[in-house]
Amino acid sequence: MGIFQRFARLPLKSTYIWSLCPQYSTDLTAVDRALIVRSSNPGAAPPRLPFSRVTREDLAFFRTLLPGRTITDPDLLKSSNVDWLKTVEGNSEVLLRPKTTEEVSQILRHCNERNLAVCPQGGNTGLVGGSVPVFDEIILSTSLMNQVITFDNISGILTCQAGCVLENLSNYLEERDFIMPLDLGAKGSCHIGGNVSTNAGGLRLLRYGSLRGTVLGLEVVLADGRILNCLATLRKDNTGYDLKQLFIGSEGTLGVITAVSILCPRKPKAVNVAFLGCSSFQQLLETFQCCRGMLGEILSAFEFFDASCMSLLEKHLKLTNPITESPFYIVIETAGSNATHDEEKLHKFLEEVMTSSLVTDGTVATEATKIKALWSLRERVTEALTHEGYTYKYDISLPVEKIYDLVQDMRGHLGDMAKNVVGYGHVGDGNLHLNITSPSKDPALLAAIEPYVYEWTSEWKGSISAEHGLGLKKRNYIYYSKPSEAVALMGSIKAMLDPKGILNPYKTLPDNIH
Amino acid sequence: MGIFQRFARLPLKSTYIWSLCPQYSTDLTAVDRALIVRSSNPGAAPPRLPFSRVTREDLAFFRTLLPGRTITDPDLLKSSNVDWLKTVEGNSEVLLRPKTTEEVSQILRHCNERNLAVCPQGGNTGLVGGSVPVFDEIILSTSLMNQVITFDNISGILTCQAGCVLENLSNYLEERDFIMPLDLGAKGSCHIGGNVSTNAGGLRLLRYGSLRGTVLGLEVVLADGRILNCLATLRKDNTGYDLKQLFIGSEGTLGVITAVSILCPRKPKAVNVAFLGCSSFQQLLETFQCCRGMLGEILSAFEFFDASCMSLLEKHLKLTNPITESPFYIVIETAGSNATHDEEKLHKFLEEVMTSSLVTDGTVATEATKIKALWSLRERVTEALTHEGYTYKYDISLPVEKIYDLVQDMRGHLGDMAKNVVGYGHVGDGNLHLNITSPSKDPALLAAIEPYVYEWTSEWKGSISAEHGLGLKKRNYIYYSKPSEAVALMGSIKAMLDPKGILNPYKTLPDNIH
Repeated sequence: MGIFQRFARLPLKSTYIWSLCPQYSTDLTAVDRALIVRSSNPGAAPPRLPFSRVTREDLAFFRTLLPGRTITDPDLLKSSNVDWLKTVEGNSEVLLRPKTTEEVSQILRHCNERNLAVCPQGGNTGLVGGSVPVFDEIILSTSLMNQVITFDNISGILTCQAGCVLENLSNYLEERDFIMPLDLGAKGSCHIGGNVSTNAGGLRLLRYGSLRGTVLGLEVVLADGRILNCLATLRKDNTGYDLKQLFIGSEGTLGVITAVSILCPRKPKAVNVAFLGCSSFQQLLETFQCCRGMLGEILSAFEFFDASCMSLLEKHLKLTNPITESPFYIVIETAGSNATHDEEKLHKFLEEVMTSSLVTDGTVATEATKIKALWSLRERVTEALTHEGYTYKYDISLPVEKIYDLVQDMRGHLGDMAKNVVGYGHVGDGNLHLNITSPSKDPALLAAIEPYVYEWTSEWKGSISAEHGLGLKKRNYIYYSKPSEAVALMGSIKAMLDPKGILNPYKTLPDNIH
Repeated sequence: MGIFQRFARLPLKSTYIWSLCPQYSTDLTAVDRALIVRSSNPGAAPPRLPFSRVTREDLAFFRTLLPGRTITDPDLLKSSNVDWLKTVEGNSEVLLRPKTTEEVSQILRHCNERNLAVCPQGGNTGLVGGSVPVFDEIILSTSLMNQVITFDNISGILTCQAGCVLENLSNYLEERDFIMPLDLGAKGSCHIGGNVSTNAGGLRLLRYGSLRGTVLGLEVVLADGRILNCLATLRKDNTGYDLKQLFIGSEGTLGVITAVSILCPRKPKAVNVAFLGCSSFQQLLETFQCCRGMLGEILSAFEFFDASCMSLLEKHLKLTNPITESPFYIVIETAGSNATHDEEKLHKFLEEVMTSSLVTDGTVATEATKIKALWSLRERVTEALTHEGYTYKYDISLPVEKIYDLVQDMRGHLGDMAKNVVGYGHVGDGNLHLNITSPSKDPALLAAIEPYVYEWTSEWKGSISAEHGLGLKKRNYIYYSKPSEAVALMGSIKAMLDPKGILNPYKTLPDNIH
């Protein structure tokens, strides 16, 4: 039984909230919003909506359509029912593994007619409970939709099925002298379709921009099975509304992405990574400003993590700190077309930040395995945290000069309640990953964190989810970052594209909108 | 009287077309599409829709709301009723010049209640008849909404009202060591709100990407006067659907953009421009490939125009060709953080293309006035063309290796019918501006060009409007680049956001969708 089923008997919660926030109401006050999100446990599941249950006839239909790819064995379903963090667990009894867009279309047409809820699933690496069923939703996995369709090595435009694993695409492109415009820690498992559905950010956004710019086309199956072919391979196309944008970042609630075309940058001829230590966050910010000026167009990443993260890397993953212990660590990557020029820029920059004492110690790598080793320090922080017990994860956008204030403020606010309060993230994007650990799930700690962390973020006009999305866990906190008119309009879009609400229910939109 | 009014008596045209393409029909064949766009003159205005006429009471309302800013003098209205190319002329009797978002909100609330059609207008520099009234729509000008709201010189995020002129913003930023992420020939007149509404591309897209990535937030007034505040100033925000994308590129048909926040790059420390001649388009393409490899991250523009364009620049604008006559001319711009490195890269590249005879002649500028002079050759082609009589303008995206084939094919196809068939555009984006001139408007010539040009484009899976949008003139050709399911969905979005259809009617969507 799913861990959320115990919340299914909460009395009329969504009706109660609805009365506070009717669609298109413009007079929702901050107090109302706080009421909404404080009511019971806003991150927990709402009551199951009245979708149909899967019948023997439904299974027969799926088995005919997907012979050998309609999974009902509970053991095989287990890993698809629970998220990577093991914080959300559903109870789905059917996992479907289509290979083609036409199969996805037939699945959704059937589910829509039968009023069966569907949870689209890529690599299931999401952190907000967006990619697993909440109750008994049918899991529609893209794992067998893993073919590259075309790659044009003049334009660098790749077209592929949604289930291609990001790292496989990266390897495919590297052989052809190109790279993917995005890179993230979960690359070994995550699917490009999931990346697009969640508008994944990651480590290269600073340089290559967001998927809203690099994704050129999408093929999407709508809730009723219609196939929407917007799979253009053009850098520019202003013929009507840009429909694909609706599906980027909407977490599978508006349609199922089945194919993606994406603009890929040339593989840089030279890559350098510098790993530096700073004695204060202020010095880290000054280093960032200096870096942007001196490295300019070759800067491809500016990441940070704090000393607490380093301790966890050493303790749980046995990684070695390559430099002197420091309160803050920076990973800077340059990528360019001329190794000599890049090294010269990097050395001038390092000279500047060392002589001005902005940076206390550092090391530089130009060789691939060493680069990988330095990057893994930053990339494996998430993994190290999972060894600490239970992790409360927050993914916050703020004006860059404020991002570490939140970590420090939270430490003071929580005192001994938390085992660890750590900060890491993408300085270049003003994006902090605030992580708070405790030996096990701790409702009192959670109550001390939320909504405090969201109020803090909202006060600085930040985003309560910079890149992770809202999924199940954060859906009811949307009002901290979006006005009620905007949320109501999102509800209208959902109602237009998925009138029965079968696509990834209980996700992204708050309970008063479903 | 507007030049389009004579088409107003066409018998039941939209009803007729509707029967060919019901909403959500999936069986529209290429033949049907051809029928749609061949019926009468698809670029001309449809019959006037049954909007109310402006009454004395309406004027009294506007005059109270906007004292001294409600213009009804026909002489003052003249320039707002006609587009820059003087190819579309409306007959509006009221021009409103709000200064605040609240005023825009009140105007639209009134117009929506009264069923009065509205044409939002920025700098009125559009090329597809999107920014002028077709009949008697009220013109809502953003010209007095020209204030910078905030600029953060750490993040480079600018927030301003929609009516700021692009060049003024560029000057404002240059003083602060930043630049706008877009630049276009019309910069002296166009408004940033219009740029965003049309998803303008321009000269820097190759480097800084499209507005879909650089625009971080929008404030929009919806058709019924509701203000939608999505004016975030964050690089990353994945809280719900990205509503602002609906308004980027929808040409004022879904809402009126009143404020924009946009991510601005640092001003490059070094800028170089090379002006080169090539003896064939194949050599130009090889030069482009070589350039991308050798200039890499400092390449900020790769533009071209043909010998016919140069003749027109010399003839009409008395500009001087700075190099030997060639069939093709290229403008390459580099922008970087290190002048020495950039010059070294550029010189190595020039050496390579000169010794391999890809380029026949060239000149380089690093000084601002010389850079400007070289750029003006490319930027003033549009202006030179206006002196030729009537210009039929096409803005096509194609696989880059195909873009000049269309010009040559069109020359053969039209023979002596056309005075000039010229090509110029953005090689880096696969974006051709195909221009065909004749001494005056020539229906026979038009019939020879269209739908031929669109069929050609469609065959190569190109876009019939890369960056200009559809406006009035191209609306009915949308099916050449978008499947009918997509167009139907656009119609649903329009109906959801503007149920009475008062916002920029007769634009963007084809007549069968209105």
